[in-house]
Amino acid sequence: MTYCVGLLLDAGMVLLSDTRTNAGLDNIATYRKMFTFEDAGERVITVLTAGSLSVTQTTIARLREAIEDDDATGETSIMLAPTMLKVAEIIGNTLASVREDIDHKMNATKVSVSASMIVAGQRAGGAMRMFLVYPEGNFIEATEDTPFLQIGEHKYGKPILDRVVKPSTSIEDAQKAVLLSMDSTLRSNLSVGMPLDLAVIERDACRVSSRRRIEAKDPDFARMSEAWSNALREGFSQIEL
Amino acid sequence: MTYCVGLLLDAGMVLLSDTRTNAGLDNIATYRKMFTFEDAGERVITVLTAGSLSVTQTTIARLREAIEDDDATGETSIMLAPTMLKVAEIIGNTLASVREDIDHKMNATKVSVSASMIVAGQRAGGAMRMFLVYPEGNFIEATEDTPFLQIGEHKYGKPILDRVVKPSTSIEDAQKAVLLSMDSTLRSNLSVGMPLDLAVIERDACRVSSRRRIEAKDPDFARMSEAWSNALREGFSQIEL
Repeated sequence: MTYCVGLLLDAGMVLLSDTRTNAGLDNIATYRKMFTFEDAGERVITVLTAGSLSVTQTTIARLREAIEDDDATGETSIMLAPTMLKVAEIIGNTLASVREDIDHKMNATKVSVSASMIVAGQRAGGAMRMFLVYPEGNFIEATEDTPFLQIGEHKYGKPILDRVVKPSTSIEDAQKAVLLSMDSTLRSNLSVGMPLDLAVIERDACRVSSRRRIEAKDPDFARMSEAWSNALREGFSQIEL
Repeated sequence: MTYCVGLLLDAGMVLLSDTRTNAGLDNIATYRKMFTFEDAGERVITVLTAGSLSVTQTTIARLREAIEDDDATGETSIMLAPTMLKVAEIIGNTLASVREDIDHKMNATKVSVSASMIVAGQRAGGAMRMFLVYPEGNFIEATEDTPFLQIGEHKYGKPILDRVVKPSTSIEDAQKAVLLSMDSTLRSNLSVGMPLDLAVIERDACRVSSRRRIEAKDPDFARMSEAWSNALREGFSQIEL
């Protein structure tokens, strides 16, 4: 499994993904699930992936090929697409077509493959936008009312987001929120694992403003996780039945 | 959906269930999911149910019929069974057979039915025991290492239990923990709904020590839910990135 989360805030976008991939419980590996396409100052697109690794890797590879193609146009390359909506469409179509190809190959074994993605980005002159792309290629968009999107093992980490994330949340608080949301997920589900990839895209920067890989023994993450546990236990002990 | 949780502690057992049942999103109703069988001081058994209402209702009805049967024995009646393990076996076999019957009827429509149960109880002279009974009739038991069992929509409410519940947890704290676990679930999933049923079975009492129905506008639950939100936000604001 996987847990990826993206926040669309007034001040920018905050994205977090884990890196655990497993083919059965006895075959666990680490793969990056966060991919950035950037023309700094002009356009930034970050994609988070969940689902069958063969589908997500092939989709990302095809998106890259389309960008590098000599005949690339705004219809085929996410770096030339005129709007973020078009970017989501290209990614959705690529994902759906890869999924179909691979699903077809899997038919004989009756195993089905699937994948979904969060696409966050901004082009110079446009607004920041964030989409959740479904395996079939259709997508939904984050809005003021629901300023976050999650893919993969999303339930454990949702309560904290429901409680603290609003469009007006600061970038700093947003990073805390996604890390604590991930912390709850890591504690409850073994199929989500460190290291983590955290990225911030500030409003109108059109580039990744900061990027951080958080390793299993990261002292800052450990301190925050410990402080949150203490805060929960402290808060819990003070509540009267 | 449903959310039910049971805690097996040194001091006793704490059980909580919601009451929302739905057949599609447009057909929502309230049904009790907590059932108690009691011979006060001699034997107490509380069953929490999740899954298809037709399966759980029929299973409970058959358990009642078996108890009231003139030829009831320790092999057929959960009120005569010599051990709690045998109680879990009878409930598991009844559940599996009802599920199979109904599944057979549903075959034509390719819809499948299923249900699971938490069974908690004690008989005079025996230990408190708590089981999670699967749709197939097999079961697992709560232990010191994992002193709680959940059925239904369990993920949203698991992080708080993972953090605060130990065998040594007091009955009072345990009630807080299950109510806050339910609170997180209610906030994140519409298919789990008030009112709630909360029961406490103190160690060696062999009866339900306290029972409380918590209605949608219960002021104590609202106060606790509000206090928990404030504690989370307060704790969150004090953590440094």
